[in-house]
Amino acid sequence: MANGLEDVVVAQTTLSRVDGERGVLIYRGYDIRDLARAVSFEQVAHLFWYGELPTRVQLDTLEKEMARHRALPDVALNVLRALPSATAPMDVLRTLVSALGAGLPFVQPDLAQAIALTAQVPVILAAFDRLRRGLEPLAPRQDLDHAANYLYLMSGKVPTAAQADALNTYMILLADHGLNASTFAARVVASTWSDLYSCITAALGALKGPLHGGVPSRVLDMIEAIGTRENAETWMRAAFARKERLMGFGHRMYKTTDPRAEILRDLAREVCSPEFFALAQGVEETGLRLLHERKPEERLYTNVEFYSAAVLDAVGLPKDLFTATFAVARMSGWTAHILEQVGNNRIIRPDAEYVGPAPQPVIPLDQRV
Amino acid sequence: MANGLEDVVVAQTTLSRVDGERGVLIYRGYDIRDLARAVSFEQVAHLFWYGELPTRVQLDTLEKEMARHRALPDVALNVLRALPSATAPMDVLRTLVSALGAGLPFVQPDLAQAIALTAQVPVILAAFDRLRRGLEPLAPRQDLDHAANYLYLMSGKVPTAAQADALNTYMILLADHGLNASTFAARVVASTWSDLYSCITAALGALKGPLHGGVPSRVLDMIEAIGTRENAETWMRAAFARKERLMGFGHRMYKTTDPRAEILRDLAREVCSPEFFALAQGVEETGLRLLHERKPEERLYTNVEFYSAAVLDAVGLPKDLFTATFAVARMSGWTAHILEQVGNNRIIRPDAEYVGPAPQPVIPLDQRV
Repeated sequence: MANGLEDVVVAQTTLSRVDGERGVLIYRGYDIRDLARAVSFEQVAHLFWYGELPTRVQLDTLEKEMARHRALPDVALNVLRALPSATAPMDVLRTLVSALGAGLPFVQPDLAQAIALTAQVPVILAAFDRLRRGLEPLAPRQDLDHAANYLYLMSGKVPTAAQADALNTYMILLADHGLNASTFAARVVASTWSDLYSCITAALGALKGPLHGGVPSRVLDMIEAIGTRENAETWMRAAFARKERLMGFGHRMYKTTDPRAEILRDLAREVCSPEFFALAQGVEETGLRLLHERKPEERLYTNVEFYSAAVLDAVGLPKDLFTATFAVARMSGWTAHILEQVGNNRIIRPDAEYVGPAPQPVIPLDQRV
Repeated sequence: MANGLEDVVVAQTTLSRVDGERGVLIYRGYDIRDLARAVSFEQVAHLFWYGELPTRVQLDTLEKEMARHRALPDVALNVLRALPSATAPMDVLRTLVSALGAGLPFVQPDLAQAIALTAQVPVILAAFDRLRRGLEPLAPRQDLDHAANYLYLMSGKVPTAAQADALNTYMILLADHGLNASTFAARVVASTWSDLYSCITAALGALKGPLHGGVPSRVLDMIEAIGTRENAETWMRAAFARKERLMGFGHRMYKTTDPRAEILRDLAREVCSPEFFALAQGVEETGLRLLHERKPEERLYTNVEFYSAAVLDAVGLPKDLFTATFAVARMSGWTAHILEQVGNNRIIRPDAEYVGPAPQPVIPLDQRV
């Protein structure tokens, strides 16, 4: 039985390739190491949506199109105001994406909707974050790019170039990753010829699960609880004794370094305070050493979650928006996978092995004991 | 490549077995033919949730528990009022189920939530249907069962026993069906340790797709367009000439009669007008004859959609609520599958075959042509 569908190939894709043996991640013919610091999130989205990196003119067109869709329709703002302010940000996104699809004519997913919804997702998050703080949502800026506008809408201040660049790189790194559970959920929904909003709500629901979107804030909690480099080993051995897992280590797909984790470490070095970065690196080194000591046969490395948390914290995002910000990035990959699946006419419907009781007669209600 | 995952076993289940070769559907050890007219929807839900048909006392307890959850919380009513009245009922359900999860503490799916949400889904639909007609939602009745209360909330009248029984049997027939796309989508989301509301929104999004939830109203449209038994052949040959598919025939899983379709035909005979039933049966017979004439090598039969439409119309439900009423029934199966998946610690994450371009260098933006 293919319990987790490991190694079962369910689709051909031109979008991304995860080579976990060699630690390589490819987006449509480009190594993530080459893309991450060289282009913008919008360029990567263009690569996924149109099959190639944009020319200057194509990029201008896409940027304008995305900026045009930042203003949320009334239905979204009304639903947002109807939700309790304690709502988890992933629940906000799932409900709002669903509400954005409500009242629209039923069409199969198309590129125009993919672009519009990708543009709207960070606007939803920022509007919610301001509403829960008792502030009115800000009007989106047309002159800022996707990453900078998101930070602006949260804080009311135009971010520094370093902050915007760091979030931009983070979003590129998290933009796609093969048939992870959320992308696959979106493709299962797309395979029934459902609409884009249905596919994305499914993906958001899957990303919310701690086994997938993780709990990136818990990496920060762990680093803060450890407090000093010297305390790392004592703290971790105590965690092992309590049968707790260390946060931010290991990934089912990678048998070597996750290339995204490497780039995020460099990024964290640039945007975090030197003290915090030194502490995080100390925690990382100690964690790897102790994990190797405990399970020498396993090759465990820092995963993408470890330095994501440090980077997102450094650009000023609240901890409880980390997974939702992962979703902001993954919108580009999800929508591209959905559009790819729409070209495939086969509904995804696996089999189950029935292991329930053998057929028996129905006993009338009043004779059951 | 396992494109649609046909015959790939991804889970063991005790819930249902679809034997498409022999035309048999089993729910936890009971043949659907034995259950359909002998028990209530609540008894089938008990069978899925607790593993056995209830005693009288267990059934009373479950009925009371479901009745208790029929009152919608304020957040649901507020979100409902924020949606455009032209919203498609499946979009209403997807958004409202998501909103019901908003603001709740994050827990893994449990039986109490499964019962509550199953109870709430028809209440949402009826409230929406009344709001869009300019009427206020009615207060749910505690003294009616699941099927009867749904019809009461729609119309304001307690349904006849024949209407309530017909809807009850319909809901039993549609309550579960192996790892169909919506159930599988729900299990993919559950496999990340996400919450019940996330799983169900995914399932609803998949059921919305016409390849899965279908467009049951189009069976009615077809029968009405044909108009008389004598016109069926002419109408269908014209449809074939326009390359159109006939509605309500064929199902990927069944190589023989779908047992649900057989029972629904008997039910339609009881609840539809004799004129309409004779017309529907004429359309069915002509359709099967012409399909056999065109593709003698294929064994095509009427599917569950064909007489579902006639039955749901006869109990007084509007055409655009047919797929959403399918969801009302499937809530029992979806939630049971989700609870079964929660016991399995393996995230569902298949592989894709990368068929995109080979790695190439990133050309700087201003040099791209």
